[in-house]
Amino acid sequence: MVRVGIGYDVHALVEGRRLVLGGVEIPHTHGLEGHSDADVLMHAICDAVLGAVGAGDIGQFFPNTDPRWKGAPSRVFLEEAARQVRLRGGRILNVDATVLAQRPKLAPHVELMRERIAAALGLTSAQVGVKATTNEGLGFVGRQEGIAAMAVA
Amino acid sequence: MVRVGIGYDVHALVEGRRLVLGGVEIPHTHGLEGHSDADVLMHAICDAVLGAVGAGDIGQFFPNTDPRWKGAPSRVFLEEAARQVRLRGGRILNVDATVLAQRPKLAPHVELMRERIAAALGLTSAQVGVKATTNEGLGFVGRQEGIAAMAVA
Amino acid sequence: MVRVGIGYDVHALVEGRRLVLGGVEIPHTHGLEGHSDADVLMHAICDAVLGAVGAGDIGQFFPNTDPRWKGAPSRVFLEEAARQVRLRGGRILNVDATVLAQRPKLAPHVELMRERIAAALGLTSAQVGVKATTNEGLGFVGRQEGIAAMAVA
Ligand SMILES: [Mg+2]
Ligand SMILES: [Mg+2]
Ligand SMILES: [Mg+2]
Repeated sequence: MVRVGIGYDVHALVEGRRLVLGGVEIPHTHGLEGHSDADVLMHAICDAVLGAVGAGDIGQFFPNTDPRWKGAPSRVFLEEAARQVRLRGGRILNVDATVLAQRPKLAPHVELMRERIAAALGLTSAQVGVKATTNEGLGFVGRQEGIAAMAVA
Repeated sequence: MVRVGIGYDVHALVEGRRLVLGGVEIPHTHGLEGHSDADVLMHAICDAVLGAVGAGDIGQFFPNTDPRWKGAPSRVFLEEAARQVRLRGGRILNVDATVLAQRPKLAPHVELMRERIAAALGLTSAQVGVKATTNEGLGFVGRQEGIAAMAVA
Repeated sequence: MVRVGIGYDVHALVEGRRLVLGGVEIPHTHGLEGHSDADVLMHAICDAVLGAVGAGDIGQFFPNTDPRWKGAPSRVFLEEAARQVRLRGGRILNVDATVLAQRPKLAPHVELMRERIAAALGLTSAQVGVKATTNEGLGFVGRQEGIAAMAVA
């Protein structure tokens, strides 16, 4: 039986943090604030995958109060999500996501993001979609206060 | 043939209203404004289900100008959405949703929400995903002006 | 193998532009700013379709710096997305979308939007869902600074 899941996440842009999206560190004046590496793209995909199998959400598996996940690479969250699917006898057919970021330009990094996400989930790059859009200067994304991502699996 | 649908809804947080999410009344200082019980989570799921079968949206079935739906429990909207699927010879495989709320903490209520949503749609809890995230203090959700939800079916 | 994709887009509302949504010109005091006709609904659907097959996004196929797409009807973007699916041996089962617009009322135009989207993708209207919601006065959509759309395919 085919199932579908949706994920959404947002993190604030601050000075003095790295910007990590889809497992790729991207040079930028600001980075994303968070307990882990704050990889908003991997987090949204993680929730979409967990949601598709009704397995809860990233906050239940990896509480942001747990010191184990402080600064953790979000790859480990995706690996756990994929494991939860297998535990339930499932298989991920594909994942697709859109990153909402006013800046910087993400297009040059998309292929590597797809590879890293695919590796963490045990998929091929062809099974992973990553798209990027600005928010046309509108709202908190447009004001560069944060970066959001939404995903389906 | 498998089909997919997406739903999104938002309601404003105001004083003097109950907060009902996924059919569960949650103690909070503010509640959601709306013609019905303003259950933003059930509304997003309702639209995802109707959208998957191309059956229109919640506003067409339940106009917020119709006194019949004043204060109505949103369960009846989900029941109608499920009926629309059956009328078209369809079957809901699963639904999954994310609630965007800065406060209060929703995790303790998620299991009951899943049961209530499942009951309204004629599904098992295992076929219903409910996830929650804050908006990290950003935008109208972060300022606690409203609560939003997005869903797929 | 069934695949799923998600798309999101936003354009700013400005004076002196036409408002085109789902291929339908809608009478309104403001229109959407953009390089093409700025049809935010068709753009979101385009990205969902491209994302489902991991084919990149609308910005890669139709850069908004390319004079060929200046003022272009977004129908051509959907036609290309459908072609990308066919090139990969795929078939679109259905698409579904929600438009977030505080004003104007979109319900009277939804059926024609479905027909135009279906025509561009080589589908029947029954395979296309278009839903509309306000943002309850909240955020940039509520302030009528822009219109957003999200879609799945
Ligand atoms: Mg996160
Ligand atoms: Mg509603
Ligand atoms: Mg666009």
